[in-house]
Amino acid sequence: MNYSFNPIGIVHSPFREKFGIPRQPGLVPDARARLELLAPYDQLESVTSLETFSHIWLTFVFHDALRDRWQPTVRPPRLGGNRRVGVFASRSPFRPNPVGLSVVALDGISNEGGKLALQISGIDILDGTPVLDIKPYIPYVDSIPEAIGGYAGKSPEISMQVQFSQQVEGQLMQREEGVELRQLIVQLLELDPRPAYKERVQQERVYGMKLYDFDLRWRVRGDVIEVVELGSTLT
Amino acid sequence: MNYSFNPIGIVHSPFREKFGIPRQPGLVPDARARLELLAPYDQLESVTSLETFSHIWLTFVFHDALRDRWQPTVRPPRLGGNRRVGVFASRSPFRPNPVGLSVVALDGISNEGGKLALQISGIDILDGTPVLDIKPYIPYVDSIPEAIGGYAGKSPEISMQVQFSQQVEGQLMQREEGVELRQLIVQLLELDPRPAYKERVQQERVYGMKLYDFDLRWRVRGDVIEVVELGSTLT
Repeated sequence: MNYSFNPIGIVHSPFREKFGIPRQPGLVPDARARLELLAPYDQLESVTSLETFSHIWLTFVFHDALRDRWQPTVRPPRLGGNRRVGVFASRSPFRPNPVGLSVVALDGISNEGGKLALQISGIDILDGTPVLDIKPYIPYVDSIPEAIGGYAGKSPEISMQVQFSQQVEGQLMQREEGVELRQLIVQLLELDPRPAYKERVQQERVYGMKLYDFDLRWRVRGDVIEVVELGSTLT
Repeated sequence: MNYSFNPIGIVHSPFREKFGIPRQPGLVPDARARLELLAPYDQLESVTSLETFSHIWLTFVFHDALRDRWQPTVRPPRLGGNRRVGVFASRSPFRPNPVGLSVVALDGISNEGGKLALQISGIDILDGTPVLDIKPYIPYVDSIPEAIGGYAGKSPEISMQVQFSQQVEGQLMQREEGVELRQLIVQLLELDPRPAYKERVQQERVYGMKLYDFDLRWRVRGDVIEVVELGSTLT
């Protein structure tokens, strides 16, 4: 038996590549995105009363992981990338059905220029991600604070101190959205996006990620991250 | 763009028809089921470490709602069945992509006779439901007690008192699993499974639901439910 689904919307997110995306939703509150609904689902009626909920569930396709082969075990970054757990005991994108699930904050609903869109934040979703479903987060059902979270029992700790080079500080100060962008970069990098197994090996390396239309680069020294470049990916 | 998925498992549940199924997971803790994994996903490896989590997410297909047409608004039972909200502001099975999402308690994993199965409880899932994905419930990510739950902000109240006819009490006492079955029936009926809009109209009617291989019938008088019949659906 085979079930087929069409996306009901597309996420427009600052995360333009996999590296650097927060590993779970909610970790980076300032990670903001727009979920644009596609026809024929882009009717204001279909989201009536959704604004009375503070959070929503997104069921989406890991469209960037589609060609990868499924394996029965994966190595979650939380375990340092060297211990294997069952694929169903993980939230890895590499799974039999590459379907993702994220709870995000619903900040608003807009309907401008014929485009119905949800403003969301705290996201961990790649730009261009096709969304299959939106559901309201119902706290009395979905919130189980006493649940036991196995190897992912505790929130990851903020492990890094984030600094900016004088040049990057200058660039940020010249931009209208510089304060927000700086805040987002701090929230992203203080969680240390590096693969865990590289942490002790490749000190002093420069890392990079694409964020909005920026090419962000940073250097690691001990537990200090210095942002050294904020280039443009537009030519 | 179109995405197609194959079930990774099937739920074997006491709920053999839609009427009477709890409206959310967790409301009826004694609603127990078995999720049997299908080949090639039925490898013990694929669930390694899953047992360290107390709860899991199931993403499943509302296979009984597949032929129904999608509408932009629905009438949730929580609002008395007469107020409309957007389909994406509801958990209704009648949605553009008929995908369900339930958090259930994971009570155990068994691997007997070559069948890998998860024992789950607190379910709200129809018998025979195809499951597309299993994910661990991660409390620090998924549990947001301060979330605002719109029109579904509070857990439904237990509104009915459940009694049993002498005949049904006798039948229950003769069965090995009678105590558990009685407890399940109480938990199901005290939430009042009737459609909300009928509540004031059709007093004194006899209602029925199929539960395991039983045909359960009850009568409503004010806020008292009396279980009057526990027949068999097997001939």
